[in-house]
Amino acid sequence: MASNAASLLLPKLSNLHYYRSSSSPRSSPNLGQVDNFDFHGYMATKLSHVNEALNLAVPLRHPTKLHQAMRYSLLAGGKRVRPLLAIASCELVGGHESAAMPVACATEMIHTMSLIHDDLPCMDNDDLRRGIPTNHKVYGEDIAILAGDALLSLSFEHVAVCSAAAAAAVPPERVVQVLAELAAGVGPAGIVAGQVVDVESEGKEVDVGMLEFIHVHKTGKLLEAAAVCGAVVGGGDSAAVEKVRRYARCVGLLFQVVDDILDVTSSSEVLGKTAAKDLVSRKATYPKLMGLDGAKEFAKTLMAEAEDELSGFPAQRAAPLYHLARYVARREN
Amino acid sequence: MASNAASLLLPKLSNLHYYRSSSSPRSSPNLGQVDNFDFHGYMATKLSHVNEALNLAVPLRHPTKLHQAMRYSLLAGGKRVRPLLAIASCELVGGHESAAMPVACATEMIHTMSLIHDDLPCMDNDDLRRGIPTNHKVYGEDIAILAGDALLSLSFEHVAVCSAAAAAAVPPERVVQVLAELAAGVGPAGIVAGQVVDVESEGKEVDVGMLEFIHVHKTGKLLEAAAVCGAVVGGGDSAAVEKVRRYARCVGLLFQVVDDILDVTSSSEVLGKTAAKDLVSRKATYPKLMGLDGAKEFAKTLMAEAEDELSGFPAQRAAPLYHLARYVARREN
Repeated sequence: MASNAASLLLPKLSNLHYYRSSSSPRSSPNLGQVDNFDFHGYMATKLSHVNEALNLAVPLRHPTKLHQAMRYSLLAGGKRVRPLLAIASCELVGGHESAAMPVACATEMIHTMSLIHDDLPCMDNDDLRRGIPTNHKVYGEDIAILAGDALLSLSFEHVAVCSAAAAAAVPPERVVQVLAELAAGVGPAGIVAGQVVDVESEGKEVDVGMLEFIHVHKTGKLLEAAAVCGAVVGGGDSAAVEKVRRYARCVGLLFQVVDDILDVTSSSEVLGKTAAKDLVSRKATYPKLMGLDGAKEFAKTLMAEAEDELSGFPAQRAAPLYHLARYVARREN
Repeated sequence: MASNAASLLLPKLSNLHYYRSSSSPRSSPNLGQVDNFDFHGYMATKLSHVNEALNLAVPLRHPTKLHQAMRYSLLAGGKRVRPLLAIASCELVGGHESAAMPVACATEMIHTMSLIHDDLPCMDNDDLRRGIPTNHKVYGEDIAILAGDALLSLSFEHVAVCSAAAAAAVPPERVVQVLAELAAGVGPAGIVAGQVVDVESEGKEVDVGMLEFIHVHKTGKLLEAAAVCGAVVGGGDSAAVEKVRRYARCVGLLFQVVDDILDVTSSSEVLGKTAAKDLVSRKATYPKLMGLDGAKEFAKTLMAEAEDELSGFPAQRAAPLYHLARYVARREN
């Protein structure tokens, strides 16, 4: 049955414009030059800059409880994949980190909002997130909902106000473009659409098309928006922005496939959330549909596609995104 | 006790920069010329345009249940005070309705989101809104929360995408400015701040300062943003925009004072929600703090202030905002 599912999925994906460039995956000769790139050093530096920027973006103002609740979930750690994608995509097209920082912070605020609302008792009813009690367990459901609303609103305000600031100086037409992209990534054609279909699929038979829709929208759209926004504020032309978009679509799905694999192979301690909960609650996952080996093979194909989209950029500037995709693919290590 | 509260409040407001221009209220000679302005005709025309634009802004797309839930609350009627404020403020400074329509729709989406979330069982736990069952009573709590999130996101996307469209052609730097203004109106220094303090005040003694904070943030900030955004997209200079801001602050508080008066004097049938619920649940209201007559007197003062801010504009262009303030003040008729 697992191989059947895989054979269903792979031909479908091979026709699926969403994940593929028009060309076939090529070997990426120039990316080989940056194998000694210090990705962990790069990650650590950027992570520190992002965490500092997030801390400053949400100061402890009145009403205190609201800001405490916002900060509790926003500053609770996390891999900061979306901010890193935004910054690395900005640098890929020759932009400076400071131009990407407002959108980087915004993507993390939006992501945190979606987690807070997703964890609520009337949704996934989760008690743990990132190894600590979920927002509503600490602050109550009412404040948790409002903290999410506040983070969502602040994400747009932050981009609108800070992108025009001296260090970044992003032209206003590009600020409008990234605000539209970010909003589309979370709204009724973005994260929320995925959450609704996810909620509706509970206890039902989930086919490949529906699983794909859920993941593309719940996870993929915001990762895509993060990368695209980074390339836009970095000054990329439309061809470069579209390459980054296709790269991010591959990484978005890769992220979910690996997440599903980790749900099968890891324990609660490692993930900081209830392991295998998705399987227990009978949600569809890639290992269920394709078998564990099939899912791992699928992850490799996506990695090759992602790498291919980077092949036209200077190797040094592409190195962070290349290694970021590898990091997503291999984060069980 | 009521007169004590009034004497506490009035001197406070007379010093309060938030509601006042630097000058004293003047009589407004030029507004007398437009007493025969057909306000009801104006309202009906604009209301029809706004409802048509809202209907088009949220089509019935996949996922159907999400879009149904969004449309259920967004198109359930309502006075559309915020969109009308945006359009009338745009026209006040010489702009065309089409330039204001995206922000007009956005303010109604944001307002609707705040109502949907405010009505949830863990917040106000309301069963009726605008005379029909609340969103979560029809679609469930999960979809109601997500419909709110979707409306909030869409409001920003709608402004970012539609404001640059041919008919409106708002310069991008003004689009960025209104997006920042809108987001600030709803975020942790806007509606959400008011909701948090409102939630926290339940069952406690509420003084004038806290009551004012709740109303300014829950009601005032978005009305202010609507008017300011209208003036900005209409091409107003900063002096005109600030006059509009002060006008809107007066109308915002007027709106709440009249709402409180209506809670005392109207029945459920007229209001379409549980009448006097605020009083029953021991929330502070202006009639409680100032007495019914004191609250009515306060409303008159605010009306005079609002009118004063309009006195420098051409009478014909100021007529809709002048009558809109009168409409808010007298809507019990």
